[in-house]
Amino acid sequence: MWFTSDNASGAAPEIMTALQAANAGYARSYGADDLMAQVTTQLRNTFEAPEAAVYLVATGTIANSLCLALTCPPWGAVFCHEHAHVAEDECGAPEFYTHGAKLALVPGDHGKMTPETLAPVLTRTGTSVHGVQKGMVTITNVTEAGTVYTPAEIAALTAAAQGLPCHLDGARFANALAATGATAAEMTWKAGIDLVSFGGTKNGCLGVEAVVIFDPAKAWEFELRRKRGGHLFSKHRFLSAQMSAYLQDGLWLRLASHANAMAARLSAGLMAKPGVTLTHPAQANILFPEWPAGTHARLQAAAAAYYDMPAPKGREAARLVTSWSTTTDDVDRFLSAL
Amino acid sequence: MWFTSDNASGAAPEIMTALQAANAGYARSYGADDLMAQVTTQLRNTFEAPEAAVYLVATGTIANSLCLALTCPPWGAVFCHEHAHVAEDECGAPEFYTHGAKLALVPGDHGKMTPETLAPVLTRTGTSVHGVQKGMVTITNVTEAGTVYTPAEIAALTAAAQGLPCHLDGARFANALAATGATAAEMTWKAGIDLVSFGGTKNGCLGVEAVVIFDPAKAWEFELRRKRGGHLFSKHRFLSAQMSAYLQDGLWLRLASHANAMAARLSAGLMAKPGVTLTHPAQANILFPEWPAGTHARLQAAAAAYYDMPAPKGREAARLVTSWSTTTDDVDRFLSAL
Amino acid sequence: MWFTSDNASGAAPEIMTALQAANAGYARSYGADDLMAQVTTQLRNTFEAPEAAVYLVATGTIANSLCLALTCPPWGAVFCHEHAHVAEDECGAPEFYTHGAKLALVPGDHGKMTPETLAPVLTRTGTSVHGVQKGMVTITNVTEAGTVYTPAEIAALTAAAQGLPCHLDGARFANALAATGATAAEMTWKAGIDLVSFGGTKNGCLGVEAVVIFDPAKAWEFELRRKRGGHLFSKHRFLSAQMSAYLQDGLWLRLASHANAMAARLSAGLMAKPGVTLTHPAQANILFPEWPAGTHARLQAAAAAYYDMPAPKGREAARLVTSWSTTTDDVDRFLSAL
Amino acid sequence: MWFTSDNASGAAPEIMTALQAANAGYARSYGADDLMAQVTTQLRNTFEAPEAAVYLVATGTIANSLCLALTCPPWGAVFCHEHAHVAEDECGAPEFYTHGAKLALVPGDHGKMTPETLAPVLTRTGTSVHGVQKGMVTITNVTEAGTVYTPAEIAALTAAAQGLPCHLDGARFANALAATGATAAEMTWKAGIDLVSFGGTKNGCLGVEAVVIFDPAKAWEFELRRKRGGHLFSKHRFLSAQMSAYLQDGLWLRLASHANAMAARLSAGLMAKPGVTLTHPAQANILFPEWPAGTHARLQAAAAAYYDMPAPKGREAARLVTSWSTTTDDVDRFLSAL
Repeated sequence: MWFTSDNASGAAPEIMTALQAANAGYARSYGADDLMAQVTTQLRNTFEAPEAAVYLVATGTIANSLCLALTCPPWGAVFCHEHAHVAEDECGAPEFYTHGAKLALVPGDHGKMTPETLAPVLTRTGTSVHGVQKGMVTITNVTEAGTVYTPAEIAALTAAAQGLPCHLDGARFANALAATGATAAEMTWKAGIDLVSFGGTKNGCLGVEAVVIFDPAKAWEFELRRKRGGHLFSKHRFLSAQMSAYLQDGLWLRLASHANAMAARLSAGLMAKPGVTLTHPAQANILFPEWPAGTHARLQAAAAAYYDMPAPKGREAARLVTSWSTTTDDVDRFLSAL
Repeated sequence: MWFTSDNASGAAPEIMTALQAANAGYARSYGADDLMAQVTTQLRNTFEAPEAAVYLVATGTIANSLCLALTCPPWGAVFCHEHAHVAEDECGAPEFYTHGAKLALVPGDHGKMTPETLAPVLTRTGTSVHGVQKGMVTITNVTEAGTVYTPAEIAALTAAAQGLPCHLDGARFANALAATGATAAEMTWKAGIDLVSFGGTKNGCLGVEAVVIFDPAKAWEFELRRKRGGHLFSKHRFLSAQMSAYLQDGLWLRLASHANAMAARLSAGLMAKPGVTLTHPAQANILFPEWPAGTHARLQAAAAAYYDMPAPKGREAARLVTSWSTTTDDVDRFLSAL
Repeated sequence: MWFTSDNASGAAPEIMTALQAANAGYARSYGADDLMAQVTTQLRNTFEAPEAAVYLVATGTIANSLCLALTCPPWGAVFCHEHAHVAEDECGAPEFYTHGAKLALVPGDHGKMTPETLAPVLTRTGTSVHGVQKGMVTITNVTEAGTVYTPAEIAALTAAAQGLPCHLDGARFANALAATGATAAEMTWKAGIDLVSFGGTKNGCLGVEAVVIFDPAKAWEFELRRKRGGHLFSKHRFLSAQMSAYLQDGLWLRLASHANAMAARLSAGLMAKPGVTLTHPAQANILFPEWPAGTHARLQAAAAAYYDMPAPKGREAARLVTSWSTTTDDVDRFLSAL
Repeated sequence: MWFTSDNASGAAPEIMTALQAANAGYARSYGADDLMAQVTTQLRNTFEAPEAAVYLVATGTIANSLCLALTCPPWGAVFCHEHAHVAEDECGAPEFYTHGAKLALVPGDHGKMTPETLAPVLTRTGTSVHGVQKGMVTITNVTEAGTVYTPAEIAALTAAAQGLPCHLDGARFANALAATGATAAEMTWKAGIDLVSFGGTKNGCLGVEAVVIFDPAKAWEFELRRKRGGHLFSKHRFLSAQMSAYLQDGLWLRLASHANAMAARLSAGLMAKPGVTLTHPAQANILFPEWPAGTHARLQAAAAAYYDMPAPKGREAARLVTSWSTTTDDVDRFLSAL
């Protein structure tokens, strides 16, 4: 029963099969492989964006960092939620890739910024040469709190962004779509998003993320920044193969829907237990339950793996993440152990 | 007949099998996987360096960049051959990761520095606060010219380095060992090398390079720099699996020996042709033949893929690279077409 | 009546005289001038630190930035008050010079951190490779709120810093000493401070700040960072002359005492007016009065120059700064106009 | 007899007088002083460029670094002479301010690039994503070898620059104009130069350089980069005062003409001595004589100060720099001692 993170899962069988198939023979390197041409078409179709520039990298941190660096000057501010992944979990990669931009932290309940919480931070930034300037806005969906922005909420935020470039950190983009029923286009450019980190790794790939840039004028700069970061793969076909299979026949949405369904089952089970509450609404594949002290010991005895969270006195808290490979049996055994 | 680069090859079957095996079940992420513990032991054994810090990344550029950044301050000079990969083929990644160090270019025939060519560049660097300071030395083996340093030549260079840290760019390290018969230890720390980029990608992996740091005191800084560069894989087991299989039962050396043997066969065949010469000695798996004008057209008609090189009037030149997957049939067909 | 900032004042006559004297004849450049040798002795004596490395630069921003860069790695956190000059008024210079460190903002009333407000920010930083690491602490005295830390308060903060390097931003260091009666040593190394930005510009110089580093082992790195930032003056004697005259016979403390006395006179006058309050305690040479709406217009009509501040409805607020050149007449005329 | 550098001289009396005058009363800070408005007009008139953006900084290194950073991306190449000041004497400041651009070194006799020496370096740069891209060209006039480009030579270089931005490092701009009789406009924008470091420090100021940017669209970015580098002076009037007096009534050209005349007198005297040769043509205020071994000792005994240079066996070499304050007596005494 592994609920530590969706990155503790392996890769989906379809992805492994595609990788094996891509291994046959020789292929052009550094992204000139035939599979990448196919991926480009698939991503443009998925996003209904026939002109979009699309690229592959291997980690979510670099997908985000390159997007930030592409849209924020070194003397700019990146507006993000105060607990965003870019702010807390990337060891300063955004500052590194932007050459020193400042993350301007925006508060908000349940991991979400709102136009109201964004406005004052925007307003007080960039008023003279003495401070950093307004740079760009980055929004995470699914959030670090496991909550989900609807397209309308995204649109409200980008409308409040005063014309700044807006990025969507979609490390769990598929889960956000599965949760809302929105299309990729509705969740992004139709809602004012300029570029997207489109995650594959956590949702059944080995290690691949796409970057989708709706204005292709920034494409060449992206390529140079990627290369310079050491993120251009020579045997690029192995990235292409993962992404191509991931997008084939809706696999990506099926995997995410399954993960979300397992979280819903788990959430329902948790809610049925006396003394168990959820710190954040359960909307995708991450849950933050709180339960009576002593529960951790019982669960660990049953070999349940997850992360502890800080909790009030007399209580314990946890983060539980489901994935494409979570089974109903995993969920039910966890609930029993609880 | 693909001779464009060893990175046009796929992955060796043993590597693909290991990847598939590693996919079973759940694993801890970010390098805490059990397979990585195994890789650590394997690499320490391979290098006879029981204390070495060892890490995995996915590209050669980042292996090199992190090694340079770890040993050269922003105001330092990286001493390297004027045609080194770090100087010409990484789009400024060394400057990016070191935060602005300067590459001090050292001349030398056939892609090799010598103590004599290194000395004057060293001497004129770092004489006052007005210039950049002596930083570190990086040596490529196999060189970009396809030549190979012996351990004695490496030792002579590191002895001439005035105590500076010395790095070995071993993107084709296995080919260099196969060519010289040296052990990994003889080619590195026994010859004064402090840290190594140990290549896997070009020699039968999908995308994995090890960094071996003989003084483990720099280990934590390496981990932070890797994370901050966006190069710490969440599903790290897929890097571990490649490297573990690569090192298992000497696979890495068998693959490189095969590539070198194919280059030797090709070289012998080329030398037997009238009007064909080699610009650099054939010592590993890269050849630089020059032939009469008109030959390119004949070879391309026969579907031979390789890179053109600049040549004197009336002549044509090429770079031919063999790999673990080159067959004697490939070689012989190429020679026939020629 | 100029109360906009102490940097709206000119230079004290003694400083101008010294500059003129320093202009005679030839002098060695880049800090090798004889006057700099004298300054070194004066600063070491002033700080009772016979081994300290001391350097001159021309602006406060660079003094701070170099101190931060010297003690915080690119992947580190600089702990500072949320309204510190380094956080709000230097356009990202700290991020630029540190190559991307993150400013970790510490709350605190009246511009001052306390061990209690620092502790939780420290504790939540640097817990794994995924976040930035604990770097260093920087304390501003006089604070941006015009308040003053006592040596005991500084010592309490440095004791709470968990062994991190501690920097004092002393752009108004003389005013802090004048306010507390502490010696330079008591306010710095005796209270756990490792390096100091020792301001001259705001207190009667044209443009000079000293950096005092109590551990001279970092001296050479400082020199390289200063040069690389473009901050090593060729005609360095003109920096030395200012600092030498500034330290001569206690001029620096006399000038600051005068500025503080003018602020005290102004503060007393303000407090005597009905409806006038001070947002922060008046402790040095900066005051933050709040007064009834309509007052601004009256003061501006009387040609009083100062900065407006945000205020509650029905009220107005200002920042008033006195300097070495403020006269009692300036103060009294301001109070009359009010 | 000081011939070490023009920066060993003090400031011209007119400059000191202006500084004293500027000290009266209060002034707006950070470049909003009235004197700066005057400087802006003076510089625009001097360059016949009514729209140019003009700024002041205190050192030549920062004037150059900001100009390079303004026109070269982090992944770009700065094309410069192999012995340019930016390449050899700024401790990596160009790499620091550009965030890691690479200096592409162009050979050329007597410190000068030519279209012929520039072309191959340009051509081999920026051919794919694997290398750095063509960034900008920087030309030094007066060169480090003491030679001078004519406007026609500058124009030939900028014409060969393939449309890249072109910068003129004019640390000794006045000497170059005095040597050629060209106007400021002829030497710069009329010859294809986009932005200029206009030196004051070496030619009679205390420490001030102007940056002149002919396309004002980059003005705001320049201001942010200057601030972020810690180079925006609070008491900016003291920079303005120097530059204003420097430009007043042709002072800058008179001072440079005098320095050049002293060098001509010295050069003529040197040429008249048996066994003395000049390594580079004497065209402005820097000479590179070579003389018989043993001469250094004689000159040092006569208290002549200058820098030694490398020389062939049996010979000695020197660099001699004259300035606005060199007297005919200095020159004649030096020649006698020789």
